[in-house]
Amino acid sequence: MTEIERVAVIGAGLIGQSWAALFLGRGLSVTLQDVAPGFEDAARTAVARAWPDLVDLGLATGAVPWERLNFAGEIATACNGAGFVQECGPDRIEVKRAIMAGIEAGVGPQVVIASSTSSLLASEIQAVAAHPERIVVAHPFNPPHLVPLVELVPGRRTGAAAMAVARGFYERLGREVVELKRDVVGHVANRLTSALFREAVHIVAEGIVSAADVDRAVRHGPGLRWALMGPYLTYHLGGGAGGFRHYMEHLGPTQAARWAELGAPELTPELAQRLIAEVDAALEGQDDDSLRARRDAGLVALLQLRRALDEGQP
Amino acid sequence: MTEIERVAVIGAGLIGQSWAALFLGRGLSVTLQDVAPGFEDAARTAVARAWPDLVDLGLATGAVPWERLNFAGEIATACNGAGFVQECGPDRIEVKRAIMAGIEAGVGPQVVIASSTSSLLASEIQAVAAHPERIVVAHPFNPPHLVPLVELVPGRRTGAAAMAVARGFYERLGREVVELKRDVVGHVANRLTSALFREAVHIVAEGIVSAADVDRAVRHGPGLRWALMGPYLTYHLGGGAGGFRHYMEHLGPTQAARWAELGAPELTPELAQRLIAEVDAALEGQDDDSLRARRDAGLVALLQLRRALDEGQP
Repeated sequence: MTEIERVAVIGAGLIGQSWAALFLGRGLSVTLQDVAPGFEDAARTAVARAWPDLVDLGLATGAVPWERLNFAGEIATACNGAGFVQECGPDRIEVKRAIMAGIEAGVGPQVVIASSTSSLLASEIQAVAAHPERIVVAHPFNPPHLVPLVELVPGRRTGAAAMAVARGFYERLGREVVELKRDVVGHVANRLTSALFREAVHIVAEGIVSAADVDRAVRHGPGLRWALMGPYLTYHLGGGAGGFRHYMEHLGPTQAARWAELGAPELTPELAQRLIAEVDAALEGQDDDSLRARRDAGLVALLQLRRALDEGQP
Repeated sequence: MTEIERVAVIGAGLIGQSWAALFLGRGLSVTLQDVAPGFEDAARTAVARAWPDLVDLGLATGAVPWERLNFAGEIATACNGAGFVQECGPDRIEVKRAIMAGIEAGVGPQVVIASSTSSLLASEIQAVAAHPERIVVAHPFNPPHLVPLVELVPGRRTGAAAMAVARGFYERLGREVVELKRDVVGHVANRLTSALFREAVHIVAEGIVSAADVDRAVRHGPGLRWALMGPYLTYHLGGGAGGFRHYMEHLGPTQAARWAELGAPELTPELAQRLIAEVDAALEGQDDDSLRARRDAGLVALLQLRRALDEGQP
């Protein structure tokens, strides 16, 4: 197999722009496709903004290689010569299938097509494809050029060869690939996130705490630990000398009792409006651009910190 | 009200030891009580180990002030002269109430008694107390001397004055206090943690991913963001230009659809054994001491990083 050199990115929203920046940083040529007027300028701005962070993380060097970034209004044009396709279109199944048909018309049957979908199933996307075996889901976390996780998910008709190619592709990009055995709604990380958020909605709906205090509790409590260690190892250390076995055997009943108490709120329009008002209050007038800039600066610093910690290990 | 100078810490397990180190660091005198033989030496070792981290975080200076750390085998002795009591005994209601009775016999009715309980309700603990109005729950996150969150919870009979005293006490210790309007099982942070963990158990039980990959997904995905920003603001930024309102109005149905898909596993002995085997595999032979040392070093570095980021703000 020849090394992938050119990638088509289909859809130039936030996710497509961010993928494009990462691909460019890692030495690939990119053709970014969209139909929105002026999408090229917006993409250039996004790539220019992402670049210093990529350099700080060792994922890019030098100036932005604008000569390797091309634009196309047509899917077929974008796919011409592509060795890999990253699809980032809208998450509606009929739109997704139409985009996939356009991509399949533009590339040979051996080219792997990865969908960034967060809410659709790989099996549904590939159901009417000409060559379903090369279609995978590769779901990044926002923003993809900073957050390392890529969830790699096969549909029922995806072949092992496509999964292996995709894994190699993302690992070469410095991504942390988590491979699912089969496709489920929300993949893994968004299922976990949604489980936490459902309870976050429940306790605010019940008037126990404000949304601002939920965020503070996560940021100053479990969130700090989760940046370093996932839930299983966290409970392992919480189990003391006996570790996770001790935790399960002694505190398992407490855990199960909490599960029985968790809420299952209904996301009514009224509740949604209450939550919107709570988030407005939590924002305390911070504007989104500075909030996003803070998050991104924090992510870069945090990733650098973790690398230093890992390198300090024996 | 006079400033609190002496604290009784009742129960010298991991949580009591860690509280004692923090209290000493912040200039308080501590009497640590337990009935376990040799608990004094174990506590000295724990305090000595915690001290450099407290110094690095600006929560302690100089050498350990051993002259301010005293030990007692009897609750009454420990409570003598205490201006605040941090209770860290076993989380069984009959034991807790007996300890509370012992503490109440040792301090005047104006002294606030805070329970570190993670699984009991403040209302239950105070139900048979002589002076229930000064009993609160102040739940830390492990390890309390590093993780800033303190969940402050009133029971039905807790007075506003006791809540105010406790809040002032923990804020003076550099803690981030999240105050609940009323007591619920698991307070806030452990409810969120348990909601996430329930789904983490579900997807491993269903054979979708390994426990090791759940941990990797959290650590390299949402966990990174949660160390910087809670779930509400995260979805706000995920909503693009329209923020959380846009998220709720356009992606709310996707979120609700995910809620409907979440699992509700039963924590049977068989499942517990499977999870224990998965965690053993995830550990890859890492020993607990070095794992804990890595976590603590990571927490210290992460807290320093966040302080630097916050100070860099306009």
